[in-house]
Amino acid sequence: MTAYKRHVDTKAISDLTIARLSIYLRSVERLIELGVETVSSQDLASRFNLNSAQIRKDLAYFGEFGVRGVGYNVRELRQYIVEILGLDRERRLVIVGAGNLGTALCHYSGFSGGTFLVVGVLDSDPNRIGDPTPAGLLVEDASRLAEIIRQRNVEIGVITTPPGAAQVVCDQMAAAGLATILNFAPISVRAPDGVLVKTVDLKVHLEELSFYITHSQ
Amino acid sequence: MTAYKRHVDTKAISDLTIARLSIYLRSVERLIELGVETVSSQDLASRFNLNSAQIRKDLAYFGEFGVRGVGYNVRELRQYIVEILGLDRERRLVIVGAGNLGTALCHYSGFSGGTFLVVGVLDSDPNRIGDPTPAGLLVEDASRLAEIIRQRNVEIGVITTPPGAAQVVCDQMAAAGLATILNFAPISVRAPDGVLVKTVDLKVHLEELSFYITHSQ
Repeated sequence: MTAYKRHVDTKAISDLTIARLSIYLRSVERLIELGVETVSSQDLASRFNLNSAQIRKDLAYFGEFGVRGVGYNVRELRQYIVEILGLDRERRLVIVGAGNLGTALCHYSGFSGGTFLVVGVLDSDPNRIGDPTPAGLLVEDASRLAEIIRQRNVEIGVITTPPGAAQVVCDQMAAAGLATILNFAPISVRAPDGVLVKTVDLKVHLEELSFYITHSQ
Repeated sequence: MTAYKRHVDTKAISDLTIARLSIYLRSVERLIELGVETVSSQDLASRFNLNSAQIRKDLAYFGEFGVRGVGYNVRELRQYIVEILGLDRERRLVIVGAGNLGTALCHYSGFSGGTFLVVGVLDSDPNRIGDPTPAGLLVEDASRLAEIIRQRNVEIGVITTPPGAAQVVCDQMAAAGLATILNFAPISVRAPDGVLVKTVDLKVHLEELSFYITHSQ
């Protein structure tokens, strides 16, 4: 493994490249389960319906990797992508909005355990504060957001409020120093420069299925 | 608008192309809100941080579209993508698993209203059957799955059960004739040939944020 550049120009790298790195990581983890030790970008592409030139280009943003004619050592490739994505250390989350979606996410696989860990579930509704969540946390008062972010070393805020509250919560998260926010409220929210907000749109998955229905008939 | 090929070889088109079409659709809808009437692939790419060559390539799978040197008529482009994705008619969903995630999805924006419509929320737990959901449906007995799929013209099944039940529910959905299944259970499920199962992995969004944290420090 050579020349991994941690300090890359993130603006030159599209969200789609990052999303593909997650897909490559899942694919590589599957190869490890299957006992595969080395893989070429062509193998990886054909096994998982990916594009080999795209794989090489995506990985090349981060330095030189792989041996021409031999391919990638699968475990090294996993470690390489883990480092690129910064998954080699714990990242703490706070969820604001303890409704069904927030409650579901606080024990969703991958959100609590491994790299990511939900350390707080907050709500502004007095009737919800103190309620136990399935993950074992008690719902806390949303007015304590800034204090909880600081005290528990939170890096990522997750918004699962109704749409009308999302912008206010986003502003509060940014003011409390969070630089990364995942918004599940079905509304676009704005954050100051230097704060990344990703709005998750689950409808894209239904659109993909709709494409398949349309074109298989 | 010319030569839209509805019957394309879906195997030649990657999931990533379809996911990008959803992104293009959101971008084009935003342009319509802004009153923009025509857009080149370069404009579209620079406004929304996309790749112009990729846009042209993705759209070209489906026929000839756009006028060289002029670009796309924005409303025609929207209609074109809507037709490609098959969003020009209602698609009915059934959700199996009436826990927090299933309950959240049955009133999630975009899952109920517009193209997609949840027409049933099912569970096998007798304590949940009959419970009202926020969307106004009552939870129904999961043993009625096949009957509900047929009677309500369901096209898409959504699995929000615990991991241990996901494969059985997937099998039941396929046996009842569903060709498209969206699986939120954090486990890989298999379906017979001709049935498309998409497993949603919400962790990819956290991984993208982790990338940003890592590279902006």
